[in-house]
Amino acid sequence: MPESPITARGEDFATWYQDVVLQGDMAEPAEIVKGCMVIKPNGYAVWELLQRDLDDRFKATGHQNAYFPLLIPQSFLRKEAEHVEGFSPELAVVTIAGGKELEEPYVIRPTSETIIGYFFARWIQSWRDLPVLINQWANVLRWELRTRMFLRTSEFLWQEGHTAHASHEEAVEEVLRILDIYAAVAEEVMAMPVVKGVKTRAEKFAGALKSYSIEAMMQNGLALQAGTSHDLGQNFGKAFDVRYQTREGQLDYVWQTSWGVSTRLIGGLIMTHSDDKGLVLPPRLAPTKAVLVPIYRKDQERAQVLEAAHRIAHETGARVDDREGQSPGAKFFHWERRGVPVVLELGPRDLAAGKIVVKRRDTGVKEPVTQSDLAARLPRVMEEMQAGLYQAARERLKQNTALANSLEEVVGILREATAEKGGGKFVMAHLKDDPACDARMKEFKASVRCIPLVDEYDGPGKCIVTGETVDRRALIAKAY
Amino acid sequence: MPESPITARGEDFATWYQDVVLQGDMAEPAEIVKGCMVIKPNGYAVWELLQRDLDDRFKATGHQNAYFPLLIPQSFLRKEAEHVEGFSPELAVVTIAGGKELEEPYVIRPTSETIIGYFFARWIQSWRDLPVLINQWANVLRWELRTRMFLRTSEFLWQEGHTAHASHEEAVEEVLRILDIYAAVAEEVMAMPVVKGVKTRAEKFAGALKSYSIEAMMQNGLALQAGTSHDLGQNFGKAFDVRYQTREGQLDYVWQTSWGVSTRLIGGLIMTHSDDKGLVLPPRLAPTKAVLVPIYRKDQERAQVLEAAHRIAHETGARVDDREGQSPGAKFFHWERRGVPVVLELGPRDLAAGKIVVKRRDTGVKEPVTQSDLAARLPRVMEEMQAGLYQAARERLKQNTALANSLEEVVGILREATAEKGGGKFVMAHLKDDPACDARMKEFKASVRCIPLVDEYDGPGKCIVTGETVDRRALIAKAY
Repeated sequence: MPESPITARGEDFATWYQDVVLQGDMAEPAEIVKGCMVIKPNGYAVWELLQRDLDDRFKATGHQNAYFPLLIPQSFLRKEAEHVEGFSPELAVVTIAGGKELEEPYVIRPTSETIIGYFFARWIQSWRDLPVLINQWANVLRWELRTRMFLRTSEFLWQEGHTAHASHEEAVEEVLRILDIYAAVAEEVMAMPVVKGVKTRAEKFAGALKSYSIEAMMQNGLALQAGTSHDLGQNFGKAFDVRYQTREGQLDYVWQTSWGVSTRLIGGLIMTHSDDKGLVLPPRLAPTKAVLVPIYRKDQERAQVLEAAHRIAHETGARVDDREGQSPGAKFFHWERRGVPVVLELGPRDLAAGKIVVKRRDTGVKEPVTQSDLAARLPRVMEEMQAGLYQAARERLKQNTALANSLEEVVGILREATAEKGGGKFVMAHLKDDPACDARMKEFKASVRCIPLVDEYDGPGKCIVTGETVDRRALIAKAY
Repeated sequence: MPESPITARGEDFATWYQDVVLQGDMAEPAEIVKGCMVIKPNGYAVWELLQRDLDDRFKATGHQNAYFPLLIPQSFLRKEAEHVEGFSPELAVVTIAGGKELEEPYVIRPTSETIIGYFFARWIQSWRDLPVLINQWANVLRWELRTRMFLRTSEFLWQEGHTAHASHEEAVEEVLRILDIYAAVAEEVMAMPVVKGVKTRAEKFAGALKSYSIEAMMQNGLALQAGTSHDLGQNFGKAFDVRYQTREGQLDYVWQTSWGVSTRLIGGLIMTHSDDKGLVLPPRLAPTKAVLVPIYRKDQERAQVLEAAHRIAHETGARVDDREGQSPGAKFFHWERRGVPVVLELGPRDLAAGKIVVKRRDTGVKEPVTQSDLAARLPRVMEEMQAGLYQAARERLKQNTALANSLEEVVGILREATAEKGGGKFVMAHLKDDPACDARMKEFKASVRCIPLVDEYDGPGKCIVTGETVDRRALIAKAY
């Protein structure tokens, strides 16, 4: 057997991840454009499936897509004090256009709150104009020093929702509605369990009152922030003078939200399900769901097997890999690395018995199925695999979540996890929402991921740093 | 009656166009970002329908979507001599990123031949790797001095196809296959007749061997280049060293194509069908196909009409405009300007008669339909309107196309058209494919739009400038 082109997870998780991305033909680094990548067809097709699912849910909840300019006048970012501080170090700046030095440079959008705020001010006059529920599918750019395909790249693709409401209550409802959508897509579509929570003040979005996130656990126990939903309060409304006449005839600033998920989700998907053989895709996000590999030795077998293969493919929607000059073994290997959920094996003996072998990518289990039953069986295998992947990830999350009641315990748990497999754990501990407490976690290369919305533990307790009583445990972890 | 917010076409076509775009809530200028626009929800929804249709056709012909970086190292553009000359004046340049001056600036892609050429060189080694059939949905930026919403904006959205082939013949087949797809979408989906042709040498894409285009006629007789498909020959293959081993074991450069349509199509759509009352959308591109406006005076009528309205909407997929505080007249006006193909009127008298009135946006014709027949009638009305719009545009194209056999005749026809309505005509004349001949047309503010692929006229004839014999007539017109 040839050496695997994929490093084992246990050996080096970071290299494993990169190998899976490359061998799965998902993406490749674009070294000539610092920190950027090319999303290859197999990766882009996964993104399209995710997009379609998210987009349908946004539209079903009343949102409309629109498109705003890529370039933002540099002065716009300065209008919201926290916002400019948060994003300034990451900006790419256009100083020359049409052969001339620009009087005011533009920045490439790192996110679009500012430019959309400007247009909201033009569009919104009265309570009758509210709510405004806009989403944008776009590329954004944040100059990053340390990048990793999908997880952190200078340019990435995302959707950014931007809404304006007549009350804070309504805005908060929107923020949580979207957080629920994100969690549902992560769990139901990506088979990736997440913890929904609120960010600490130190970790919130630059310019928000409050930020909410979904946090997922990767196979090495590290956390991945997979989506965020922000309650912007009236901060951007004030910065861009987005005022409206209330029902009562007063002038007030609108209450805004913004929220986004990005191609980063694909990184999370890969690190949740893939294995040492390569990419594993949950059926709902697999561009190709089943590939049939015909097996034959002699020419007379070939004709019979291929004929049956194409008939079965026609009945079931599977794709036949009838490439010449490639052994069945090479084909299995090819589709395995590309994360196809099910490979169907059909040889002369199967043919004689009226059977076909269904092999699941995640478990490797082979199941002989009567050919005439396959069209009915295949969708069920997909459902079982989708559920199985979710269960396995859910179980891993549970196994790798620990309670801690002191700073020493937190540090001990994290150190042990790092020592064992270079990974992490989710540690639940009582911690005050105070930047000083966040800073203590940073000393150990961990951070407060969120304070979960649902308390699954023991309610109030004493902060492990200050000793003050806090409502519930926070989720502390090393993160991407 | 209040004054129309829309300037009449006959009065000022350019202002009419802008009024239709604004009143149809399709887009608005973003003055703060030079030459850019915001695509508003009504406009973006049309783009999404167009995208979906095009994307399905690209995939059905074996193309896959991928995504390449927005930023391109400035040196890349210089690798193909014609290309850099063509695009240099329009570039936006990033010179600062992450707080530092860049050693080599990046340009924001004006088109992606160069960066994709770089990756093709990495991906393609052997004839077995060919063809490579890639498409990208993306934003691009070309700094423009004179802009017009949708038709010419500094940033625009488009798709760009990029393919590599093992022979010139195969590449040309691809170029023409795509040109056919563009023409089919224009005619079948947009109801916009087009002339398929090859560009003159003076008008071809910077870096192509040959460019093909579809040209549409706007209501004022001006031409709009609505899509282009380029035979790049081996120019970019040589510039980026994209070589492959042939079946015979030789090394050769690949043959490439590129092709694109953009949000400009929406401008063409608007200028083909809309009228002095505002936007007209062909049913296949209408985000909302039918709106039911309930009409009532008294409260007891209200309940009955609304109940029937919602029942009918449920049966037919129409949307009910049940906004309070708006008169039926205001509602008719609202949907008219937004280009909804059919408005359904339902009042107490219709209700008593078991009828509903179907009003078509394009003809204004009102047709009373028995309520129980509506679900069956409505799709047919849509088909009739789609066909009617196409026929009307086709007829206009025919009426406004003239033959000319001398330069004086060409100039006379164009002058007359300009004098009459500030517009243009399509003039078919024999003209040599020589930049000097193109230049003569420019003297009269016209250009050679294309040399049509199908000769609908009289075959060879003498060039109106040089007197040399050429194969067929070229299409000369004023253009956007």
